[in-house]
Amino acid sequence: MNMNDWFLNRCPSIDEDVAKLAQQRQLQLTKPPGSLGRLEQVAVALSSMQSNIAPTVDNVEIAIFAGDHGVANEGVSAFPQAVTGEMVKNFVRGGAAISVIAKQIDAGLTVVNAGTINKEDFGAPVIDQPIAPGTENIAIQPAMTNSQCMAALALGKSIIDEYTDNIELVIGGEMGIGNTTSATALAAAFGISTAAKLVGPGTGLNRQGVSHKLKIIEKALMRLQQTQQQPPQHIDLPINLLGELGGFEIVALVGFYICAAQRGMTILVDGFISTIAAFAACQINTGVRQWMLFSHSSAEPGHQLVLQSLSAQPLLSLGMRLGEGSGAAVAVNLLRCACALQNDMATFAEAEIPDS
Amino acid sequence: MNMNDWFLNRCPSIDEDVAKLAQQRQLQLTKPPGSLGRLEQVAVALSSMQSNIAPTVDNVEIAIFAGDHGVANEGVSAFPQAVTGEMVKNFVRGGAAISVIAKQIDAGLTVVNAGTINKEDFGAPVIDQPIAPGTENIAIQPAMTNSQCMAALALGKSIIDEYTDNIELVIGGEMGIGNTTSATALAAAFGISTAAKLVGPGTGLNRQGVSHKLKIIEKALMRLQQTQQQPPQHIDLPINLLGELGGFEIVALVGFYICAAQRGMTILVDGFISTIAAFAACQINTGVRQWMLFSHSSAEPGHQLVLQSLSAQPLLSLGMRLGEGSGAAVAVNLLRCACALQNDMATFAEAEIPDS
Repeated sequence: MNMNDWFLNRCPSIDEDVAKLAQQRQLQLTKPPGSLGRLEQVAVALSSMQSNIAPTVDNVEIAIFAGDHGVANEGVSAFPQAVTGEMVKNFVRGGAAISVIAKQIDAGLTVVNAGTINKEDFGAPVIDQPIAPGTENIAIQPAMTNSQCMAALALGKSIIDEYTDNIELVIGGEMGIGNTTSATALAAAFGISTAAKLVGPGTGLNRQGVSHKLKIIEKALMRLQQTQQQPPQHIDLPINLLGELGGFEIVALVGFYICAAQRGMTILVDGFISTIAAFAACQINTGVRQWMLFSHSSAEPGHQLVLQSLSAQPLLSLGMRLGEGSGAAVAVNLLRCACALQNDMATFAEAEIPDS
Repeated sequence: MNMNDWFLNRCPSIDEDVAKLAQQRQLQLTKPPGSLGRLEQVAVALSSMQSNIAPTVDNVEIAIFAGDHGVANEGVSAFPQAVTGEMVKNFVRGGAAISVIAKQIDAGLTVVNAGTINKEDFGAPVIDQPIAPGTENIAIQPAMTNSQCMAALALGKSIIDEYTDNIELVIGGEMGIGNTTSATALAAAFGISTAAKLVGPGTGLNRQGVSHKLKIIEKALMRLQQTQQQPPQHIDLPINLLGELGGFEIVALVGFYICAAQRGMTILVDGFISTIAAFAACQINTGVRQWMLFSHSSAEPGHQLVLQSLSAQPLLSLGMRLGEGSGAAVAVNLLRCACALQNDMATFAEAEIPDS
């Protein structure tokens, strides 16, 4: 990592003064103090990010990054690898869950081919920027080269770069058969917990399948330990791990998050894989964390551990485990309610109501 | 209770056949089976209630019932009793939380004065149908007479009667200083749990305040035990308890729920007080339960116990504790997302994607 690399650039600070004003306003609104629970906290957080006591979440952009995983050859997923590319087509045709929810919440949707096995371009509106036709099998060798890792980070950044300044919230999603294996290996390598505690069924493995998946993850971690006789320096470690174990879509998400925070855009983090990308982003650039809100707690058992490691309290717990940014997209309306309440409710003084 | 009473009339059955078709469709959509979690269950439930594999929640009506409580004289609330009437004005002026969320979700909002201490009518658009200027103090005497209880039930029914047939979802809300005391006493009398386990801070009592509130609730329960040397017959029991311990707004909610179910309208239940009214409605007429969805788990500690007694799994847990129907209103967009996903996602066959 070069100290001049873009992803080390400072993120702006959130506005603590406006946060205090928003908190004061919450206490004056015609309701018992604190009685709107998490909606109050979220509105105050959005105020601090937008430096505006009347925040809004009207303009939302979602980007889904798709990538294939060499480790899929080890039989770690309930679905065949061809599904990644087919789902890319489904995203832009409007048939996928995230396509439906994006329409429902009136959000922009960008679909990025970050490196699927598909030989031909998907064509517009898909953004075809494959780093390679899938990663290498992490059980055997590094997922990608360092320059591929840098390219994937830059790809994520490039999506944010295209967004206009009026975007108030960004959501990153992912699609990639085999990517819970990659993400779980990353989480274990980052020291969040052991692979045995982090591993889960992904798209729907049975117990035997999960057990096999764990063995593959442990094989990848063992390989990593053996090759890294001299562990990289602290500043290089997160990038190194992303290259060793990541997927192109995961690394692109990391770049997407970092650049969003550098532009002072609020990030609404989705599920298991996205949260591990969020963790990696914060490891690379600690200023990213303050720009993140967490949407939901996934059914994937390891998600709780990753959320805890980020001191993150997600808004929803609906047993979702789909990825694609779907859980985050579902949570957008909660943020809009939170804003409307803070902005439009009467104060006790305005309503001439006696306070407690 | 007379066996000809309207509230004993049968509720229609939900459509189990359509539920099965909806479940089958969920398995064909382009996502791993079950990966949309609770959103799948909710869409299937709405299908069964609407007898339609493509359910919608476009037309939503919210009714807030306001009533005052004689027991407020015992100092059981953090707010003065005058707040009930002031909040009625705030509801119709648009400054209350429920007013803001109703606008946000494009729902109708009806505000009903079921019996506040205000001497003058609020005037339109408030529906002024006060049963009496507040209930009696339940620590000393029954809250209301039997005929007042019947009138309050009928008041709730009358609101549903005004709704057009295209209404797909109804939400009942309540406002009444002192009404967590009444609701907690009711829950204990219904045998859901002990008053000590059910009691909580309501709008914001401190520990000492909660302890005092518990004493008042226990005094009311003791009075009830002493007066009912001959407990009423089974069929009369719920109505009897509502009259002894209820509030006009709580009893009106019970009538509102029963009549909604009799018309085959989906009910989205709000927080602690509303859930106790829902419990009472199901005690009076067991057919009501199948028409209920539960929106959120409140911060009021007793809410969990009441939800459990109804085998209810709410969608949200945001630490809200406001009442007014606010938690239910916030959850409406989740139902809309659930419907859109079931209705608009592509199937594996349509998308030509290999299944697992």
